[in-house]
Amino acid sequence: MEYADLLNYGFVRLDGHMADDASVVNAARVSFAKNDLDKVELTDADKGLINFLMRERHGTPFEHNAFRFHVKCPVFVAREWFRHRIGSFNEFSARYSEAPNQFYLPDLSMVRTQKGKPGAYVFEQADMEVSMNALEHMRKAYEDAYTAYASMIRDGVAKELARTVLPVGMYTQFYWTVNARSIMNFCSLRSASTAQFEIREYSFAIEKIFAGIMPITFNSWIDNGRVAP
Amino acid sequence: MEYADLLNYGFVRLDGHMADDASVVNAARVSFAKNDLDKVELTDADKGLINFLMRERHGTPFEHNAFRFHVKCPVFVAREWFRHRIGSFNEFSARYSEAPNQFYLPDLSMVRTQKGKPGAYVFEQADMEVSMNALEHMRKAYEDAYTAYASMIRDGVAKELARTVLPVGMYTQFYWTVNARSIMNFCSLRSASTAQFEIREYSFAIEKIFAGIMPITFNSWIDNGRVAP
Amino acid sequence: MEYADLLNYGFVRLDGHMADDASVVNAARVSFAKNDLDKVELTDADKGLINFLMRERHGTPFEHNAFRFHVKCPVFVAREWFRHRIGSFNEFSARYSEAPNQFYLPDLSMVRTQKGKPGAYVFEQADMEVSMNALEHMRKAYEDAYTAYASMIRDGVAKELARTVLPVGMYTQFYWTVNARSIMNFCSLRSASTAQFEIREYSFAIEKIFAGIMPITFNSWIDNGRVAP
Amino acid sequence: MEYADLLNYGFVRLDGHMADDASVVNAARVSFAKNDLDKVELTDADKGLINFLMRERHGTPFEHNAFRFHVKCPVFVAREWFRHRIGSFNEFSARYSEAPNQFYLPDLSMVRTQKGKPGAYVFEQADMEVSMNALEHMRKAYEDAYTAYASMIRDGVAKELARTVLPVGMYTQFYWTVNARSIMNFCSLRSASTAQFEIREYSFAIEKIFAGIMPITFNSWIDNGRVAP
Repeated sequence: MEYADLLNYGFVRLDGHMADDASVVNAARVSFAKNDLDKVELTDADKGLINFLMRERHGTPFEHNAFRFHVKCPVFVAREWFRHRIGSFNEFSARYSEAPNQFYLPDLSMVRTQKGKPGAYVFEQADMEVSMNALEHMRKAYEDAYTAYASMIRDGVAKELARTVLPVGMYTQFYWTVNARSIMNFCSLRSASTAQFEIREYSFAIEKIFAGIMPITFNSWIDNGRVAP
Repeated sequence: MEYADLLNYGFVRLDGHMADDASVVNAARVSFAKNDLDKVELTDADKGLINFLMRERHGTPFEHNAFRFHVKCPVFVAREWFRHRIGSFNEFSARYSEAPNQFYLPDLSMVRTQKGKPGAYVFEQADMEVSMNALEHMRKAYEDAYTAYASMIRDGVAKELARTVLPVGMYTQFYWTVNARSIMNFCSLRSASTAQFEIREYSFAIEKIFAGIMPITFNSWIDNGRVAP
Repeated sequence: MEYADLLNYGFVRLDGHMADDASVVNAARVSFAKNDLDKVELTDADKGLINFLMRERHGTPFEHNAFRFHVKCPVFVAREWFRHRIGSFNEFSARYSEAPNQFYLPDLSMVRTQKGKPGAYVFEQADMEVSMNALEHMRKAYEDAYTAYASMIRDGVAKELARTVLPVGMYTQFYWTVNARSIMNFCSLRSASTAQFEIREYSFAIEKIFAGIMPITFNSWIDNGRVAP
Repeated sequence: MEYADLLNYGFVRLDGHMADDASVVNAARVSFAKNDLDKVELTDADKGLINFLMRERHGTPFEHNAFRFHVKCPVFVAREWFRHRIGSFNEFSARYSEAPNQFYLPDLSMVRTQKGKPGAYVFEQADMEVSMNALEHMRKAYEDAYTAYASMIRDGVAKELARTVLPVGMYTQFYWTVNARSIMNFCSLRSASTAQFEIREYSFAIEKIFAGIMPITFNSWIDNGRVAP
């Protein structure tokens, strides 16, 4: 599973990787000057070592790998994503290219209400009328904004200026290159129940891809309560 | 000058700092085990040392200081700002609080057209009709978007979802804590003629504050072609 | 307590800081767009907020501060210290200056034996004869090495080459500029019972200085099991 | 060329990589939302783009790749290496394993004298007598230190304590995982004529491996004066 369609126009695609569970063991074992640094098949002792490193939060052995993802998501999701500084980003720029007419609309069942305080919000599915109205508000706001944008572009207004009317529900794209330690940190925060539904969808997709490539590390992370080492 | 009003609702405010030119000299001199590590008044030799470090791109001595800024700017400016990973950010979140009804409108004279290719754009002031139309497009788009937003909020729709209609011209706020080396990197890129007008305004304001607190470092950076060490 | 003598020639000295507990609260509150961003006196609600951030591992509000330390310690301690990448270092260089004739000798009672496996070592005080022999081995090794070094220096051999004979027990000096989040990470690892005695002494000294300047943050970190947010 | 023997016991070995020139172009082009993101063969336009990014110091497109190196070098070389914070390290630990009896001895012709000031040193080959004496000083110092070390180990003294007598000429090993941007930064500093001969040897070996895998990027870096973007 190295690709996932997400939300109404988004996706996560693994574009390349240099990663396996053996790299964790080899990196940790260099500390002991073991000579068998080119392991491929892992023994039970190796799995125990990965679990020990995870539990004791010895994080550096989980950094000797790399995943390059190609992501398409709404700007408000990207805004949260780019707060994660350990990793590399290159994003679509609406200074250079015309923004596409693609915006986030939730499924009807995902329109929700919010109660409570930060850190302890309670979200509930909105009733049908509120949900329908919300979708119509969004659809209309996107349409009007894009019409204004397109009109300014036609008039020759600089793209970097015309874009100011575009909503954060607009889709953007980026490359993200990152190691397993940083992925576990990202997913510990962005798959959490306190995270926003939309970025959780992406975080779950990242987890699935990660789990397929470094299954022992992934399972050890789960077993240790999803705390990043 | 530790405060500047910027654009129509924005500002940069220095909230705190631990910084002076002497810290550069002291940090560099620890390499030589000089005993006079608590300099306050700098000699010509000290200024020469700062210039040498800048020219030879010995960057680490410029890291032993900190500036904490409070910034209010449009989201599209913040988006570029947050790409700078060496530094710390905390930003207003429209998941937790209602977004304010404040959006970026350029001065009439700053509505511009764009020609040419990335890296070599030519911007020119738009003619009066185009400019007036653009401002009206923006005003209207902001108004419609905020009306839709407010309506959803009234209906109890979760703030994190209702915000999707808000344009990137919306104002946000954040704290930014950063050292002189990272400031010079930021300003070398964001004060450049190829940077967008709106973030350049902020970058120039950062420069002025920085120049007031570390004048010898600032001047050395200017003299060395504004290349970050 | 902003200075501590450590081991036989070492010290930690706080050279400057921009730090208080209020900065944590202010940075966190910008997310809520509260207007009272210049707090000095903290209320119980503020303390609760710090505790919430610590427990939920919302780390960024703990980054809007800076501590600049001047440290003198043996090279083998500095080697572990420099593994901590979030922070800034400038160190004495034996390429530029003659190395001082100062080396680490433990107190007699700190000569210890080691049993068990990595992560679960058992250290015990060595018996008197072993301890005395060890100290004599060290003293002699340091003396012989420094004599060889001084002889090469006298012959005009490049300092960068002559230094190769100098033991890792040699003292070095550096500046370290770092924020509270990184300090808590450092101390969670380097004050731990699994860390080496000599760096623990430094880590405890850092803790004391940190506790004096950000007492609410420090206590919250202790209460939350000394896990870095 | 993915392996190089260096100095008397050292080496650099490429243990794995996810890297090619196409990744630079693809990452840059996501900004333009080009659809052909899976390039393998690069055109002249692609090469021009890489050169543009290098010249204008748009560094992030050079981060979407990874190299994992296994390095064996003297401790004094590793000490300089580990100052480079953008990258991941795991090193042999003499707390956990007995240190090997392997130390750096330069070739006779590489014993040098030093004149001048920091940043402008003049190194010259030492005359034969000085060179022979220096090698003998080193050999003897290493032998004495290792004898003292082995004696303490035999007595049961903790490895972490016994190691304090070991000279920085001792060999160590580590894994280093790093991207092309950070490699160019490393080599711009460590291949420079002002860098120490011994680390330059490693830096040149890194360059050769890098050049073989990302030849267009490498040549562009050379053409732009070896300044890291």
